[in-house]
Amino acid sequence: MASVDVPVALLGYGTVGAAVNRLLTDSADDIERATGHRLRIVKALVQDPGKEREYPPAGGVLTTDFREIAEDASIAVVAEVMGGIEPAGGYVLELLRGGKHVVSANKQLIARRGAELFEAASSSGVQLRFEASVCAAIPVIKVLRESLVVTNVHRVLGIVNGTTNFVLTEMEGGKTYGEALAEAQARGYAEADPTDDVSGADAAAKMAILATVAFNSRVDLADVEYSGITGIDPLDVAAARQLDMVIRLVGAARLVDGHVDVRVHPALVDKQHPLAKVDGAFNAVMLQGDAIREITLEGPGAGGIETASAVIADITTVIGTMHTGFLQNDAAWRTLPKLPAGDNRSPFYFRLSVEDRPGALAQVAEALAQREISIARLLQHQNGDGAALHVVTHQARAGALDEALAALGGLSDVHRRSNPLPVVSDRGVSELGWA
Amino acid sequence: MASVDVPVALLGYGTVGAAVNRLLTDSADDIERATGHRLRIVKALVQDPGKEREYPPAGGVLTTDFREIAEDASIAVVAEVMGGIEPAGGYVLELLRGGKHVVSANKQLIARRGAELFEAASSSGVQLRFEASVCAAIPVIKVLRESLVVTNVHRVLGIVNGTTNFVLTEMEGGKTYGEALAEAQARGYAEADPTDDVSGADAAAKMAILATVAFNSRVDLADVEYSGITGIDPLDVAAARQLDMVIRLVGAARLVDGHVDVRVHPALVDKQHPLAKVDGAFNAVMLQGDAIREITLEGPGAGGIETASAVIADITTVIGTMHTGFLQNDAAWRTLPKLPAGDNRSPFYFRLSVEDRPGALAQVAEALAQREISIARLLQHQNGDGAALHVVTHQARAGALDEALAALGGLSDVHRRSNPLPVVSDRGVSELGWA
Repeated sequence: MASVDVPVALLGYGTVGAAVNRLLTDSADDIERATGHRLRIVKALVQDPGKEREYPPAGGVLTTDFREIAEDASIAVVAEVMGGIEPAGGYVLELLRGGKHVVSANKQLIARRGAELFEAASSSGVQLRFEASVCAAIPVIKVLRESLVVTNVHRVLGIVNGTTNFVLTEMEGGKTYGEALAEAQARGYAEADPTDDVSGADAAAKMAILATVAFNSRVDLADVEYSGITGIDPLDVAAARQLDMVIRLVGAARLVDGHVDVRVHPALVDKQHPLAKVDGAFNAVMLQGDAIREITLEGPGAGGIETASAVIADITTVIGTMHTGFLQNDAAWRTLPKLPAGDNRSPFYFRLSVEDRPGALAQVAEALAQREISIARLLQHQNGDGAALHVVTHQARAGALDEALAALGGLSDVHRRSNPLPVVSDRGVSELGWA
Repeated sequence: MASVDVPVALLGYGTVGAAVNRLLTDSADDIERATGHRLRIVKALVQDPGKEREYPPAGGVLTTDFREIAEDASIAVVAEVMGGIEPAGGYVLELLRGGKHVVSANKQLIARRGAELFEAASSSGVQLRFEASVCAAIPVIKVLRESLVVTNVHRVLGIVNGTTNFVLTEMEGGKTYGEALAEAQARGYAEADPTDDVSGADAAAKMAILATVAFNSRVDLADVEYSGITGIDPLDVAAARQLDMVIRLVGAARLVDGHVDVRVHPALVDKQHPLAKVDGAFNAVMLQGDAIREITLEGPGAGGIETASAVIADITTVIGTMHTGFLQNDAAWRTLPKLPAGDNRSPFYFRLSVEDRPGALAQVAEALAQREISIARLLQHQNGDGAALHVVTHQARAGALDEALAALGGLSDVHRRSNPLPVVSDRGVSELGWA
């Protein structure tokens, strides 16, 4: 097949945009050999063309006028690497409606406005691809959509935020949350304002996208329950260690009896579990399904070059499939109901202080037993005047545990010391509950 | 896009063939939604149509006549799931030359006759896909070819044989090789004749295929140096434990200064290394490249359903890309030279018995130093009349170490006790040597 010149446009030319241009230029021969097409960046939308840039593009490529891209019929594929909801969202929508394929690295945009964008792409018969929006170069979207097409994936479990994984790993070494975060910032793993990462919001957006693709059901960011790691203190880390576990921010998306449950929480993870072994700023995603049992993908979940690599993989896939109708924008063809609040099940960990008096432990055990919650592990140690209790339950309904803890909170002998954390203790599906 | 009916033929209808038919039937709606095509098995070549089968196909599907498939112009895609080199190889070649796309699960065929088959596919402008030939449902071929298209992957490191991984894991628990193998056979992880697995031949075939795809260079099975696990005894396992390592059968494919080096050997793997953590019969493949640093894929590397899942993923990918020329059969567009024997570098482990006399250790150290080999770790303990020495070297040329060990073998005070085993101690690329 003769080589075909393919003009590509970028929205944005920051770190990722420059890396896309550099990789496309450096690897033009490889791409041509693999796809029969020669890719070339012909336009890049920026705010300030005069700004000094890494790997500046050829003359005439930078433009401040979106119309130069939208109205150029020779451009069939546009990569959105500008970030933010607007104006990126409006641009992407217009491009899709105008019949251009779009590749986006924008996790917030896909997680918040995916339904609208998928629909626009389907109506126009073009593709919207977004590998780079989740875990950078780890090809989890492609694997879910193209490799596991006959596998009913019913659970996705992941460490999808490298910043928090690094912070929690550092805390195991004895650092406080503040010290670990400062170290992450010094190494460039955390932003000056780390809120999006440490709150769990970043991981929640990624899990919304993964759940959408895995279950072919629209999951909006607003459907994801999440909490972050700012409240984790060294006592939690020490308690986890006593139980041969570590604390990790775990994202979990599950299909439960036709309902979708997607959440991100700090969790206690057994040291033997694969997710406990994900190092520092790396990400890992486990996909569990009928035909494949479990496939895990691990790698760097961030980085300019890594993200650019995923953007280019999407561009080449679009080019390789654009005339076939292959893998249309079916990511959201159905809308499954959300699992009702409190119905998610899991083993849980929590800690209590009890007065060192006969009967205190009996009250705790009774409050749990009344709600059909059984205790799997119990550690007790002296703590000043009272006793500290570390409790790990068997599988329990989250709502039932909340009720039990509320009831215990009303007792004078018992003081709650932590919110319950889910426990990920076994890679076997049956044992894993929420996670 | 209107749905298109796609007749598919199978060569073979054993465990994998039946699973392909069942998954295609059960998931017909999912596949149609994702691809716009409805797949249907219309012919399956078998030796004995009267044999009782799991999930028997519809009437008229089974045939003993290859011509019914080769000459049926309505069949565009054929999945080869019969195994063996012949007649499978001749059939695949004829189908490709006749303009049919072929998906093969046959690792021996691809590893031994890939070059010829790729060339036939390219000449005819059809695709030959073979995801299922390596690690079943782990989508490592697709990821290498489509996701990492701009990443110069320079190293592939893997545990690609579940049987040996299970046996070695069991040996850590105290079993002898024979006991562990019997356990693997009892659980269905090892064949009655386990030679292909325990000799390293199975892993070598997979590494030949992975190297071909990763480096776009023809690597034949005959180019892969390999050794198996039959010689591993509990002393080796115990020595590894003393060094905080485990023994694993590791496949490694590397690009070194424009040369290709592909090998499979039992290796000492640091317990902190991701490959040490691959459980039981699972497989894992680490891909290291410029743009992505490192991506690891882990999952079940065998199984009828898992293999069938990969076959179907390939069929749908062929269908989705068959009119675009995307990803032609470029797997072997170049032939890089092989790294000369002995030039592979690595840290190595070996063990010696030395007479308990002054000067014995000095002789060992001297023989190594003369060949620029430095010692990284040394354990010595009393062993009957003499002393047992466990030596871990820094990076060394394998050829130089062989010379040193040959020289030591000529000394009356020193008795060699094991072949040197490569050491995989750090996930950082610079430290990893061969592996």
